[in-house]
Amino acid sequence: MRIAVDVMGGDHGCQVVVEGVKLALAANDRITSMVLVGQRPVVEAALAAAQCDDPRVELVHASEVLTMEDKPVAAIRRKKDCSLVRSIDLIRDGRVDAVVSPGNTGGLVAASALRLRTLPGVDRCGIATVIPAPENLFVLLDSGANIDCRPLHLLQYAIMGHVYSREILGTSSPRVGILSVGTEEIKGNELTLEAYKLCKKVDINFIGNVEGHDLFNNRVDVVVCDGFVGNIVLKTCESLARGMLLWLKSELKANLKRKIGALLAQNAFRTIVRRMDPDSYGGAPLLGLNGNVMKAHGSARERAIMNALTFTAETIRHDINRHITEEIAAAQERLAGDLTKEGAAAFA
Amino acid sequence: MRIAVDVMGGDHGCQVVVEGVKLALAANDRITSMVLVGQRPVVEAALAAAQCDDPRVELVHASEVLTMEDKPVAAIRRKKDCSLVRSIDLIRDGRVDAVVSPGNTGGLVAASALRLRTLPGVDRCGIATVIPAPENLFVLLDSGANIDCRPLHLLQYAIMGHVYSREILGTSSPRVGILSVGTEEIKGNELTLEAYKLCKKVDINFIGNVEGHDLFNNRVDVVVCDGFVGNIVLKTCESLARGMLLWLKSELKANLKRKIGALLAQNAFRTIVRRMDPDSYGGAPLLGLNGNVMKAHGSARERAIMNALTFTAETIRHDINRHITEEIAAAQERLAGDLTKEGAAAFA
Repeated sequence: MRIAVDVMGGDHGCQVVVEGVKLALAANDRITSMVLVGQRPVVEAALAAAQCDDPRVELVHASEVLTMEDKPVAAIRRKKDCSLVRSIDLIRDGRVDAVVSPGNTGGLVAASALRLRTLPGVDRCGIATVIPAPENLFVLLDSGANIDCRPLHLLQYAIMGHVYSREILGTSSPRVGILSVGTEEIKGNELTLEAYKLCKKVDINFIGNVEGHDLFNNRVDVVVCDGFVGNIVLKTCESLARGMLLWLKSELKANLKRKIGALLAQNAFRTIVRRMDPDSYGGAPLLGLNGNVMKAHGSARERAIMNALTFTAETIRHDINRHITEEIAAAQERLAGDLTKEGAAAFA
Repeated sequence: MRIAVDVMGGDHGCQVVVEGVKLALAANDRITSMVLVGQRPVVEAALAAAQCDDPRVELVHASEVLTMEDKPVAAIRRKKDCSLVRSIDLIRDGRVDAVVSPGNTGGLVAASALRLRTLPGVDRCGIATVIPAPENLFVLLDSGANIDCRPLHLLQYAIMGHVYSREILGTSSPRVGILSVGTEEIKGNELTLEAYKLCKKVDINFIGNVEGHDLFNNRVDVVVCDGFVGNIVLKTCESLARGMLLWLKSELKANLKRKIGALLAQNAFRTIVRRMDPDSYGGAPLLGLNGNVMKAHGSARERAIMNALTFTAETIRHDINRHITEEIAAAQERLAGDLTKEGAAAFA
């Protein structure tokens, strides 16, 4: 399998990404070609510094960089030769099977949507983030691609999340829920109330609405919401988890007795820190596109890049997009006979 | 000051609420009258079991109970003699200064809005929840009263949150932010983009948008959002914090070494558990009403009820509603000369 990496857009610069690539190449012999996209002299210097001379590495020059400050849509039109756009074009042209980018999220979503287009029957791509809970992993989508959603988009996210959880996380019959303010069908806002009606008609294990309370209690495997809510929930969870761990750390240093206690119990903390670490998952796929696109954390370091690449290889291996296309088509068929306005309009 | 307590609607029944009342009476000599509203025989039995014969306690009979399963608006029309509605009527009739209820949130919001009406210039009440972060406390509102918000409602929440944080939490010049998906003014959904324009025109310390990342980093004191987002964020935080603590607890029991470590460091955990405990704050006020209404957690136990009552006494003492009315009037004046459509329509 062939993967392109936008090595320029991350917060920590090209070197860190190239080091992550080196680790991934060492760990994955399924990867036959790794195309690094960026400013040639910068990437060559990084490869030299990393002492990476793996013959599977290829370099594609792109003269510009999309920064975190760039306004997505305007910038991808203006910076036509940026590494992010060039990477996407490699998938479009069939030269690679997937792309990984730690760059500007909005830019990645916009460039992917414009240049790859969505899969048949899918209106908008969505970012699927895997979140660790004490007893399970759940997928949150959309976690930020699509701020103003329609009910149909949530239905498509439900189906795509179902496929992703089943194929990549190995959950048999994933429990799919709509994130809302009460479990009853009548609780929610206009968007979720309509989406509920659609979701219960298709062939997934739809468990209805879930609340914030349900997320970390092993009650749901796929949490469906619009990108506004999803982005806030994702960042709030990251912030709270990090805040609590830092707080615990400082409390454990308050006196000698606590320090000794912390030393004895340190493996307990390590287990939790490791499992909560966003780097373990490394990236979040943009689902619903004609091509595999993986968003790595902007702040991704070596290990996170390596994990994002490993995850990407899994996504390619499982041929996620074929499964999504099939399940969306099956849902279309089920809804075709449906008489509700939204159902009829859904896949017109 | 005189406080009415709906003693019937909590998850744990009347006895627990009455025990909390007893604790609050012992702790607050400012409370001159405590009116317990509920089914007379049940309340009398609970008072006897609690050995509470405080002369400040008075009993008002209400024959019905609004349950957690009741649909709010329909139920408060049907169950006219329920303890929740009777409690609200005591404020409306000037017989008490505030009411505390652990009952059905939707019912409390609906009954309060219908029977008390909102303060001049306020369109919708909002639930203001105090959330502990490692270095500060922040107020999240609306955390569930108003699911489908308009921009003007968010502006009013910003002003009310500003007053609450300043008067009750003692924050000088509280930092007020709109919860969104990016800090730039152009990031957000239709609702928050419009609300942003309004908030920057009034005389509060408006810091713009905040993201989920900012909540637990001491960057914001008042987090403004619609009730859909707020309810999800609140419950997600409660769920994650509880999940992490339970998880830590189980990891610390995994072997003897860890158990000894945990014992030595137990005060570190206690500090955190105590501070994260929602019972410490006990209740969340419904701001913006003609009267002080405090929602206690449905699952509130004795100590939480006591704290909710203490908080309520503070709210009365600080005459929050007078401050809100003044600040809203000042905002009206500022916006009166404003030419934007929303601004002009705002306080027509």
